[in-house]
Amino acid sequence: MRHAPAYTVLMSSILTLATIQNALRELDVLPLIEAGFVAYSRGQVILPPVGELVFPETGGDCHIKYGFVRGDDIFVIKIANYFPANTRLGTSPDDGMMLVFDQKTGSVRAVLMDHGYLTHVRTAAAGAIAAKYLAPQPIRRIGILGTGMQARLQLKALKTLTDCREVALYGRNPERLAACRDEMAADGFAVQTCTAARDVASECNLIVTTTSARTPLLSAADIRPGTHITAMGSDSANKQELDAGVLTAADILVVDSVEHAKMLGELQHVPELVSLGRVRELGAVIANPTLGRTRADQRTVADLVGLAIQDIQIAKAVYLQAITSS
Amino acid sequence: MRHAPAYTVLMSSILTLATIQNALRELDVLPLIEAGFVAYSRGQVILPPVGELVFPETGGDCHIKYGFVRGDDIFVIKIANYFPANTRLGTSPDDGMMLVFDQKTGSVRAVLMDHGYLTHVRTAAAGAIAAKYLAPQPIRRIGILGTGMQARLQLKALKTLTDCREVALYGRNPERLAACRDEMAADGFAVQTCTAARDVASECNLIVTTTSARTPLLSAADIRPGTHITAMGSDSANKQELDAGVLTAADILVVDSVEHAKMLGELQHVPELVSLGRVRELGAVIANPTLGRTRADQRTVADLVGLAIQDIQIAKAVYLQAITSS
Repeated sequence: MRHAPAYTVLMSSILTLATIQNALRELDVLPLIEAGFVAYSRGQVILPPVGELVFPETGGDCHIKYGFVRGDDIFVIKIANYFPANTRLGTSPDDGMMLVFDQKTGSVRAVLMDHGYLTHVRTAAAGAIAAKYLAPQPIRRIGILGTGMQARLQLKALKTLTDCREVALYGRNPERLAACRDEMAADGFAVQTCTAARDVASECNLIVTTTSARTPLLSAADIRPGTHITAMGSDSANKQELDAGVLTAADILVVDSVEHAKMLGELQHVPELVSLGRVRELGAVIANPTLGRTRADQRTVADLVGLAIQDIQIAKAVYLQAITSS
Repeated sequence: MRHAPAYTVLMSSILTLATIQNALRELDVLPLIEAGFVAYSRGQVILPPVGELVFPETGGDCHIKYGFVRGDDIFVIKIANYFPANTRLGTSPDDGMMLVFDQKTGSVRAVLMDHGYLTHVRTAAAGAIAAKYLAPQPIRRIGILGTGMQARLQLKALKTLTDCREVALYGRNPERLAACRDEMAADGFAVQTCTAARDVASECNLIVTTTSARTPLLSAADIRPGTHITAMGSDSANKQELDAGVLTAADILVVDSVEHAKMLGELQHVPELVSLGRVRELGAVIANPTLGRTRADQRTVADLVGLAIQDIQIAKAVYLQAITSS
């Protein structure tokens, strides 16, 4: 049963993590991701439902995000695995890759062996974009909930948007809290650790939540006027970082995708806000910033589940940069 | 925004098509695929719905099949692209790859750059398995509908199961029909070409359908007693090679997966046969062959949509063989 399709020997590139990181240094990620959100909200992007595998033994999961911009020359499939139990073994909880294909012929263009890195970069970029359009000015203190990779990367991504270097950090595990504090301090931030999430809310007017919580960490009463919250953590059914009241009470509620946030994000717990006309997409806000924060005292929330358009944009740019440099 | 997860530098292998084909020569594929079907029908396999992208401009599509055997050490994601318009450019319509991950840690074990080849091999193997349990003896003449890669590979896969070398071949396009006939003849078959699908049915007692038809090619009146049909073509909503009456009239109706065939296979057009208790899974037949053909005059149908368990089985075996040999 052998039949070699000899004519399918194609020019496809395998990009290592080092090559990917070199390419990233030449790229301005934020405008790429912004353009992706705008294209998505204009209906120019096909994004099927996220594929998922869950491994109950370890608590690990695998997310498959994929899609394409109509009329573009490529499509992308991203695999991102998150196995939190790996940290106990001293290895990374993340692995995965991004695959770039030709939209006209289906042929493999490139395999980006990023081991989950590009997912972190594009996720942090989305948080920075949400803050750009929704955070109050000035930012007095930045609140971070969670002590994982995204906690660190979200803070780092905010550095270009604000001079604020005051941080309140919440985490459940004291060891991981201290380790995260030390890393943020080494990055130039003055970090106060908190043992209750609501203590973060009482002192900060920009809050980023990056946990995998399944019960709310913040309720509406915790949130002061003029606060912006970016909720990054919920990306599956049953995850929840914010009480539904936080979304209901928001003056401006922004999601990356109404369709996906209704299934996977904070919005899954109050989907009726969509039919009430209370929900805006980030791409619409970027295209028309008057849909973002307009007054200092507004409470604003961005609920970001993470979209394949972010993967498409970053994978395409890295791929093109890498083949140009090589 | 850089943060190199240095500890994720993993041992992962990129296997080329040549390496994959060398590994395959050492493997007995049929028992592997049979074991996969049995595990699936015993409920030991997690197979989420198939991911799909469709490109209306070219008629191309991308299928993402993935899953795992509970308690196994790996999981697999398979990407198979089929872009039929490529044949007009003189290039293969197929591309894709199979990805092997560690089920305990989520880490990348291997990328099998098979360009669609393993999908063809595992699909042909499934056809041979269906014939093994359902075809009458002796096989007088083999009927093939369709002139693509699967038409050729299905016939080749039957060589080990039967001495019959008489073939009736149907295809719409005269050029492709002649080319396929010549290739089959070179492979040792006496091939008669037909311009009507029902002419194949009148002369053959084993029929394999491999087209991407959206209107039925065969109706119940065309099928003589004692005939077995394996329908390989339908793997998407709206595809159909057999009139619903062919399934209704079958004495034994076998599918690879009740769940997936109801959505993607011939069974999508008569799903009520499931609730009538008329449908058996191939894995159950392999485990208990008395559920297969028991009389010479039975009309039997196997409706195969193609399952990720076939991809899991072949990718795992090729991966293990390749790392053992290297």
